Amino acid sequence: MTTFYGIVPPLVTPLLSNDRLDIDGLEKLIEHVIEGGVHGLFILGTTGEAQSLSFEMRVEMIKKTACILKNRLPLMVGISDTSLADSIKLAEYAKQYHADAVVSAPPYYFATGQPELAEFYGELVRQSPLPLFLYNMPVHTKMNFSPSTIRQIAQNPKVVGFKDSSANGTYLQSVIYEMRDHDDFSIFVGPEEMTAEAVLLGASGGVNGGANLFPRLYVELYNAAHEGNLDEVSRLQKIVMQISSTIYTQGLYGSSYLKGLKCALGIKGICSDLPAVPFQKFEGEYVIRIKQALDEINF
Amino acid sequence: MTTFYGIVPPLVTPLLSNDRLDIDGLEKLIEHVIEGGVHGLFILGTTGEAQSLSFEMRVEMIKKTACILKNRLPLMVGISDTSLADSIKLAEYAKQYHADAVVSAPPYYFATGQPELAEFYGELVRQSPLPLFLYNMPVHTKMNFSPSTIRQIAQNPKVVGFKDSSANGTYLQSVIYEMRDHDDFSIFVGPEEMTAEAVLLGASGGVNGGANLFPRLYVELYNAAHEGNLDEVSRLQKIVMQISSTIYTQGLYGSSYLKGLKCALGIKGICSDLPAVPFQKFEGEYVIRIKQALDEINF
Amino acid sequence: MTTFYGIVPPLVTPLLSNDRLDIDGLEKLIEHVIEGGVHGLFILGTTGEAQSLSFEMRVEMIKKTACILKNRLPLMVGISDTSLADSIKLAEYAKQYHADAVVSAPPYYFATGQPELAEFYGELVRQSPLPLFLYNMPVHTKMNFSPSTIRQIAQNPKVVGFKDSSANGTYLQSVIYEMRDHDDFSIFVGPEEMTAEAVLLGASGGVNGGANLFPRLYVELYNAAHEGNLDEVSRLQKIVMQISSTIYTQGLYGSSYLKGLKCALGIKGICSDLPAVPFQKFEGEYVIRIKQALDEINF
Amino acid sequence: MTTFYGIVPPLVTPLLSNDRLDIDGLEKLIEHVIEGGVHGLFILGTTGEAQSLSFEMRVEMIKKTACILKNRLPLMVGISDTSLADSIKLAEYAKQYHADAVVSAPPYYFATGQPELAEFYGELVRQSPLPLFLYNMPVHTKMNFSPSTIRQIAQNPKVVGFKDSSANGTYLQSVIYEMRDHDDFSIFVGPEEMTAEAVLLGASGGVNGGANLFPRLYVELYNAAHEGNLDEVSRLQKIVMQISSTIYTQGLYGSSYLKGLKCALGIKGICSDLPAVPFQKFEGEYVIRIKQALDEINF
Repeated sequence: MTTFYGIVPPLVTPLLSNDRLDIDGLEKLIEHVIEGGVHGLFILGTTGEAQSLSFEMRVEMIKKTACILKNRLPLMVGISDTSLADSIKLAEYAKQYHADAVVSAPPYYFATGQPELAEFYGELVRQSPLPLFLYNMPVHTKMNFSPSTIRQIAQNPKVVGFKDSSANGTYLQSVIYEMRDHDDFSIFVGPEEMTAEAVLLGASGGVNGGANLFPRLYVELYNAAHEGNLDEVSRLQKIVMQISSTIYTQGLYGSSYLKGLKCALGIKGICSDLPAVPFQKFEGEYVIRIKQALDEINF
Repeated sequence: MTTFYGIVPPLVTPLLSNDRLDIDGLEKLIEHVIEGGVHGLFILGTTGEAQSLSFEMRVEMIKKTACILKNRLPLMVGISDTSLADSIKLAEYAKQYHADAVVSAPPYYFATGQPELAEFYGELVRQSPLPLFLYNMPVHTKMNFSPSTIRQIAQNPKVVGFKDSSANGTYLQSVIYEMRDHDDFSIFVGPEEMTAEAVLLGASGGVNGGANLFPRLYVELYNAAHEGNLDEVSRLQKIVMQISSTIYTQGLYGSSYLKGLKCALGIKGICSDLPAVPFQKFEGEYVIRIKQALDEINF
Repeated sequence: MTTFYGIVPPLVTPLLSNDRLDIDGLEKLIEHVIEGGVHGLFILGTTGEAQSLSFEMRVEMIKKTACILKNRLPLMVGISDTSLADSIKLAEYAKQYHADAVVSAPPYYFATGQPELAEFYGELVRQSPLPLFLYNMPVHTKMNFSPSTIRQIAQNPKVVGFKDSSANGTYLQSVIYEMRDHDDFSIFVGPEEMTAEAVLLGASGGVNGGANLFPRLYVELYNAAHEGNLDEVSRLQKIVMQISSTIYTQGLYGSSYLKGLKCALGIKGICSDLPAVPFQKFEGEYVIRIKQALDEINF
Repeated sequence: MTTFYGIVPPLVTPLLSNDRLDIDGLEKLIEHVIEGGVHGLFILGTTGEAQSLSFEMRVEMIKKTACILKNRLPLMVGISDTSLADSIKLAEYAKQYHADAVVSAPPYYFATGQPELAEFYGELVRQSPLPLFLYNMPVHTKMNFSPSTIRQIAQNPKVVGFKDSSANGTYLQSVIYEMRDHDDFSIFVGPEEMTAEAVLLGASGGVNGGANLFPRLYVELYNAAHEGNLDEVSRLQKIVMQISSTIYTQGLYGSSYLKGLKCALGIKGICSDLPAVPFQKFEGEYVIRIKQALDEINF
C-alpha cells in the first residue's frame, strides 16, 4: 500500500466574503470529515477554488487548515499556478505549515506540448520542498499528461502520485498500466462517480468533492471496493449517483457542481455557501431543490 | 439479465480493395470469434468503418455476414447515417437478413440539441422494423445523448439498449443510474479498457474491438467481472491494457486503433489488413512493431 | 480573374416533406437568385442540408436544378460523403447533368491526419469527372485543411478552388498567402459576415447563405468590395450584419442559421420552410420574430 | 476617433532568467517600437507571458515600463488573473505608475456562463481604478464574450474598449455591429493577419505581436487600411503573411508563435530570446530557420 490512499476530500474553501475565510466553517468542516473517517485532506484544489482566491488567501487557507488539523491526517496542498515561482512559494508555505505533499496541475493559461510539460515539471519537482502529486484536469487546463510523460516525470522519487480528474476511464486505466511497476506511486481518481470502479481496478483512492458533505459514504464505498465487497459497492454507488444527479446538476453552467456542493454544505450547517468570484451562490428555487435532494438521500 | 449482453465484437469489415469485401476473411473472422465464445456480433459500427463504405457495400456486408452466421448468435447491425431515409433502408435490409437489432449513432454532420435529438430518434424508432440500440460516440458525432434524453427515447419499448463509446466513466455511470429501473435495457461499453469496471458496476457487456483479435480474452474478462472474480479480472485487465498500449498506439493520428487492429488481424492470418479510404494500411516499421507486440502477448 | 468568382449562393434544398422536393419552390428560388445577379449556384452544400438527404434525393436535386438552370450560370455540386465511392457516384451524376464543378468536404465521421487527407484527395481528384473545389468546414468535419495540404492537393490542375467556412480570418489569410502564385485558383469564403473583408483582401467571392434570401445585397457587397468602394461596403455590411444578428440567431442550437434562413424564405413566399430531419421548422414565436426582423431590413 | 486606436504592440517581456527582467532589452524594445511610430503600448498580455510571470515580476514590469516610457504614449496594462483581488491589485499598480487603461481577459481556470461573466465584470469594473478593456482570448480562456454580454458590461463608461484575439471574423463583425452606436468604444484585433481587414471594416486598430519586431510595418499597414489605400494594404499584407507563415510556424506546439517572436527579437539584437517557463527558447535548427526567414523579409 502506498503512503497516500483512501478518501481524501478536496476541501471547499469556506468564505464569509470574497476576501475573508469562514474560519468557524472551516473548523466544522475539518472535524466533520475527520469524524467521517477520511484518510487525508487536500486543500486548494479545484473544489477549493484555489484559482479564484488571492495568493494571500491561499496562504491563509494553508495556515488555518494546518492549525486546525494539527497533523491528525496527511495534508496535501494544491500549488497549481501559471507561474512557476508562485507555485514554489506556495509549496514553501505548505512545507512551513507541515503539509505532507503538494499537488500541481499543468499551467492553465498556456497549454504545453508533452516535452514542454516534462521540462516544466522537471524544474518544479527539482525546486519543490515537498513530495509532489501530478494533477490531471483537462477541462480546466486544456491538456492531458500522456502516460509516458507521467512515467518520465515520476523518475524523480519526489513525485509520489497522480490525481486524475479527466473522467476518462480508458485514460485512467492507461496510466495505471503505465505505472504498474511503481509500487509507491499513488493514483487517485477525482470524479466520485468513478471511485468504486477505479479502486476495484487498482487505483489508490478518491479525491471526491462529495466527501465534504458525506465523508462516511465515500469512506465506506472505498472500503467496500478495496475489500472487493461488490454488493456493498453496488448499494453505495446508487447513493453516490443520486447525489451526483441531483445536487450537482442544478443551474445551467459548468459551475453547477461547485455551487451545488457549497449550497448543500450551507443547508447542512457545516459552512458558508458562498463561492468565490467569478461564481455566485445559488438562491431561491435552486436552494429549495437542493434542500429537497438532501432530504431524499437516505444514508 | 437482458436479451443482449456479454462480449459483442464490433466486427471489422475485411476488404480486398476499397470496393470489394474479403469474403474468405469475413468467414474466418466470424468463425474465429464464435470459437472464442462471444455472445453476439455487431457489424457496420465504427470499427466496421461503416461510414467509409458505400451504401451498396454496407448492404453486401449485412448479407454476407448473415449468410455466414446463420443465426448462430444475435446479430446487431449499424445503421448510422446522416440521412434518416437511408438509415431506415439499412434497417430494412437488416430485417430482411434476420438481424436481431439495429444500432444508431446520432447524425454526425449536423450536431443537434437534445430536443432535436429526441425528435429525430422518435421518428427513427417509429420507422425502424427492428429493435434499436442508441450509440453514443462523441468523438465522431460531436455530442452526447444526455441521460434524460436516453430515458425519453427509451419510453418506446423498441429501444432495447445503449452503447457508450465516450470513455467517460462519470457519464456512463450517470446513464446506468438514470436507467436503473429499466430491467430489459442493455448497456454496453465500447472501450475495452473499461469493460471490466463497467460490468462490475452494472453494465451488460462490452462491444470491444479487440474481441476481433482475441475473442476469448474479452469473454473471460466479461465472465470474471460478471461473477465478481476480482483476481481474475485483475490478471486479464493487464493483458487488455498491454494490447491497448501497444497494438492501438502506433501511428500519429486518430486512426491508430483501426489501422493497428486490422494490421494485427492480417498478421495473424485472420483477414485482410486493408482499411477503407480515407485510411491507408500500416507498412514497414509499423507492421514490425505490431508483430512484435503480438508476439509478446501471453494469452 | 478566376473562372469561379463572385456570389455563389449555397442553395437551400426546398422540401415538401423529408422525402420530397418542393419543385415549385426550387424553381422560384433559382429564378430569384438569378434575378439578383448571382455569379453561380452551389447545391448540396451545408446550407443545402445534403447530409440529411437520402442519396436518391441528392441525385434528384442535381437533376431538377440542372433542368431549371439550363446552364444559365456555372453550377457547383456538393459531393461530400464519408464514402469515396458514393462521392464519386455523385460527381458522375453532376457531370451527367452538366455541372461545372464539384465541391468536397473531408470525410466527416473519421477525422484524418493531414497526410491521410492528402492521400484521400489524391484519389478523389484522380477519379473525379469534374473540376473540384476543396471545402473547409471544421465545425462539422472536426478538422482543417492545412495550407500546405491545400497546396499539395492543388498540384493537380483539376483542383480549381477552395471554400472556407471556418470563419477563421487568420487561417483564410494563410491559405490566400500559400496559394498566392496559383492565378487560376478560386478562394471563396462561406460566412457572409466575412465576404467584404475577404474580397477586399484577395478572395474570389462568397458562398453566402443569405444570398438565397437577398441575392442582390450580396452581389452589391461583392461588387463594392471588388471595386474598392469602401463607403458602399460599409453601408451594405451593416445590412448583412443586421440579417446575421436577427434572422440567424433565433433558437438555442447550432441549427439556428438553417432554420432561420428557411423560415425567412417561407415567409417571403420563395419556397417551403421545412428543414430536413434531424431539424424541425420554426413555429410560433420564432416565426413572428423572423417576420419582424425581415420587416426591419431596409434594402 | 476613439482615444485608443492604431497599432499597440503587446510587448514581450524580455527576460534574463525566469525570475529576472532584461532591463536593457526592455529599454531597447520600447525605443524600437516608439521609433516605429506605434500608437500605444500594451504590457502583460498573452505575448507578454503575464501568466507565466510571478506577481512580483508583473509589478516590476509595470514599474520599469512606465519608467522608460515616461508617458510618451498611452500605456495599457494586462491585469488578467483568475483572482479578482489580485487583478485589482495589479490595476492599482498600473494606476500608481500612470498607465492609461487596464486590460482583462475572463478568469481562465473556471470558464463561466455569460451571466456569471457579466457579474464578474460588473464587480471588476466597479473596483478598477482605471478605464478597462475587455480581452477576448478563447484559445486560452475556453470561452467567448457574447456580443450582448459586451454591450451589457460596457454600459459602464469605464469600459472603453475590446480586444479580440479569437481570429473569428464573423464573431468580430458581430461585436463591431453590436457596439455600432458606442462611438467611444475601441475595438482592437489581436491576430496581425486580420488587422488590415478589421480596420477596413471598422475596427480601431491592432494589438499585434509582430509590431515588437517590425513596428513600422504594422503602423504603415494600419495607416493604409485607415486611409482606404487598398494597393498599399495588399502590398504590406503580403509581408505580414510572410512573417506569420515563417517566423511563427517553427516548432510543433502552440508555443511556436511566442518562441519564434522572441527568437527573432534576440537575433535582431533587440532583447533576450528567453521565454518564461513553461516554455523553452528555440535552439539549433530552429534559430537557423528563423534567421533565414528574417533575412528574406524585405521591408
